[in-house]
Amino acid sequence: MAILSERAKHAVNALHEENAIAEQLERKGKKVIRLNQGDPPLYFPTPEYMIEEHVRALRERKTSYAQFSGEPELKEAIAKRYRKHGLRLGHEDVVVTAGVSEALQFLNQSLIDRGDGAILFRPYYAPYVPHLRISGGAPVFENYDEKDGWNIELGHVEGSLRRMRKEGRLRKVKYMLITNPNNPTGTVLRHSVIKEIVDLASEYGVLLVSDEIYDEIVYNGAAFTSIGRLARGVPHVILNGASKNFDATGLRVGYAVVPEHDKASEAVKLAFSNFASIRISANRPAQLALAAAMENGAQHNEAVTRMTIGIAQRVNYAMKLLKENPHLSTVQPNGAFYLFPRIDLKAMRMGDDATFTRKLLLEEHVQVVRGSGFGSPGHFRMIALPPKEDLELAIKRINRFCKRHAR
Amino acid sequence: MAILSERAKHAVNALHEENAIAEQLERKGKKVIRLNQGDPPLYFPTPEYMIEEHVRALRERKTSYAQFSGEPELKEAIAKRYRKHGLRLGHEDVVVTAGVSEALQFLNQSLIDRGDGAILFRPYYAPYVPHLRISGGAPVFENYDEKDGWNIELGHVEGSLRRMRKEGRLRKVKYMLITNPNNPTGTVLRHSVIKEIVDLASEYGVLLVSDEIYDEIVYNGAAFTSIGRLARGVPHVILNGASKNFDATGLRVGYAVVPEHDKASEAVKLAFSNFASIRISANRPAQLALAAAMENGAQHNEAVTRMTIGIAQRVNYAMKLLKENPHLSTVQPNGAFYLFPRIDLKAMRMGDDATFTRKLLLEEHVQVVRGSGFGSPGHFRMIALPPKEDLELAIKRINRFCKRHAR
Repeated sequence: MAILSERAKHAVNALHEENAIAEQLERKGKKVIRLNQGDPPLYFPTPEYMIEEHVRALRERKTSYAQFSGEPELKEAIAKRYRKHGLRLGHEDVVVTAGVSEALQFLNQSLIDRGDGAILFRPYYAPYVPHLRISGGAPVFENYDEKDGWNIELGHVEGSLRRMRKEGRLRKVKYMLITNPNNPTGTVLRHSVIKEIVDLASEYGVLLVSDEIYDEIVYNGAAFTSIGRLARGVPHVILNGASKNFDATGLRVGYAVVPEHDKASEAVKLAFSNFASIRISANRPAQLALAAAMENGAQHNEAVTRMTIGIAQRVNYAMKLLKENPHLSTVQPNGAFYLFPRIDLKAMRMGDDATFTRKLLLEEHVQVVRGSGFGSPGHFRMIALPPKEDLELAIKRINRFCKRHAR
Repeated sequence: MAILSERAKHAVNALHEENAIAEQLERKGKKVIRLNQGDPPLYFPTPEYMIEEHVRALRERKTSYAQFSGEPELKEAIAKRYRKHGLRLGHEDVVVTAGVSEALQFLNQSLIDRGDGAILFRPYYAPYVPHLRISGGAPVFENYDEKDGWNIELGHVEGSLRRMRKEGRLRKVKYMLITNPNNPTGTVLRHSVIKEIVDLASEYGVLLVSDEIYDEIVYNGAAFTSIGRLARGVPHVILNGASKNFDATGLRVGYAVVPEHDKASEAVKLAFSNFASIRISANRPAQLALAAAMENGAQHNEAVTRMTIGIAQRVNYAMKLLKENPHLSTVQPNGAFYLFPRIDLKAMRMGDDATFTRKLLLEEHVQVVRGSGFGSPGHFRMIALPPKEDLELAIKRINRFCKRHAR
């Protein structure tokens, strides 16, 4: 359409592309098992104490605009939260957003001009790319290393950075964005990898951004390291929020933390705050609910621990069932709640992962997301949040589907 | 800062530019009367029945992601609401947003490429301009006519449209945006003016957008006309939400309605929905609260009527006190809750409205917003929401200030 902008074509989200087919099947009376969207409150109800804090904020009529960069109570709670990661944050180092989504919007609007780039690692959280492209930027892709449990191919990253610097292209690279724990792989990056990526960001002068929205959903003995712990003196941005750790996706409270005080960091936090000012406010009572939940360490820890144990059981059970399928190979997740199997497309005589996910939905009524939607063709992403019975049913269907097509 | 994008400099909101001074005065123990932000729940608590609907949604754990283009319950309630404006809306004609602010973001992201323009009327709601500029567009300014009670200079608009068409510049003009009832003037546009602006949009093929967020806050016998009532067959977008009519600014629920089914309208609603998909969801329980409040016509009508009577009393009382000041002249508002006095700067020997508002804050501790922030220098905007005693005190200070400087 001539009326639309050029950028409008970039506003796509692979997560939802098969919703229409799923709905059509459901209208025909089919039971579709939806494993496409990572939405914990559907399976683990939001903790009662947080609900009641939200109710309190509403009944106390905390329903006027919030301060545009975030409510002081929440900034205070965020500052306390990050002390355990070794950070001392002031209120001006935090900008509260409508989910990490809005933080991604501010990040790209603040930094990206047409022709700029940003380093993204494949497989990436799908919306990173449209947010970047909408601002006129283009991704510079690096890879998580499937053979190394989806950690980072650091040698390759360094080679690219060196080459870009040599060719004068590095100054156009505005940030490097990692996701830890990862969506879609469930990988918790190794401490040594975080250390090296921080060193690279420092050496090459690229702003490091870490999306740590799953940072408390870590299991199987893995240990999470925030970039905030290791990036002293290195400009960086941490993205986080209520959605996953606090099991409250639909409240849309996220935040960006910019801990350092160098010129670049100060410019970034001012720009984020300015972008926040033109949309007036994020939801106020939800901010106050998150603030109270963060301050209530005992109840929060109990809730997130209980949820994480449940998630680990489901992820590990799903892994066990997936291993029975010779046509899929899956790296063991130790964080978040996604599985990202590699598909033996050749054995199944299918051209690509989109064909696989489409046929799987049509034939077996299981909705997953094609790996190419995350930049890694030949895979699919599924969530492991549903109860065991549903997971078992879904994976039996997946395994049956693969077996049938691999004949 | 070299790290920031070009567009970052456009992210400014005049409403907040004197907050730091106000806070400094308060820290020194001064009582600052803040008349800068239009935030009804601070003065008229959000109605209890709506709060309780929100509480119910929370306790029923409706805390997972909302559908990205909006919850079906809310779309249904919005469709019912617009039947009284003569519209028959399907769910696909509505996109729910995080306040009208996000609808403005979707509007500009969907339509504006670098070098495009949009027709805005001065004085405009301040954030219209940064939202447009951030997407690479530039405003084409027309004027509301102060001499005609801030209605629209239609002859001038038509002349501009004709000239732009002749010069081949019209195809770069992506939309024309009116605000009715108006912020900052409080004007409710005449039915005949709406009719003519719809005719112009139709004749010149420009998408008409109407921000109608104050459409139930109308008084002094004025009658509101939605563009939806008159724009049959003409592509248009209506912006609205919970903030003002439902007295719930901090819940951040807005929406865009695109009632027509021509190619341009269909493209616009698909693009809005696509932009909604990459930010995943708006706040879900707040959407359900608004849906319930809309469906509860009796209680809503009682609440908005009571609030509007209160607002009319305050606006009219403020008008009476402002009339005692020979250095200000103010068009009578009949909607919303703003006053937009013209300042006799010459008599006060002040160079501009920014000097006036700055001095007023420093000397009399009253915070208002400079008219130039809305594109109309030589004026200021104040809200008339506080109780009579505070309004009286504020306007006495304003009148004393003018008298002193006009000596």
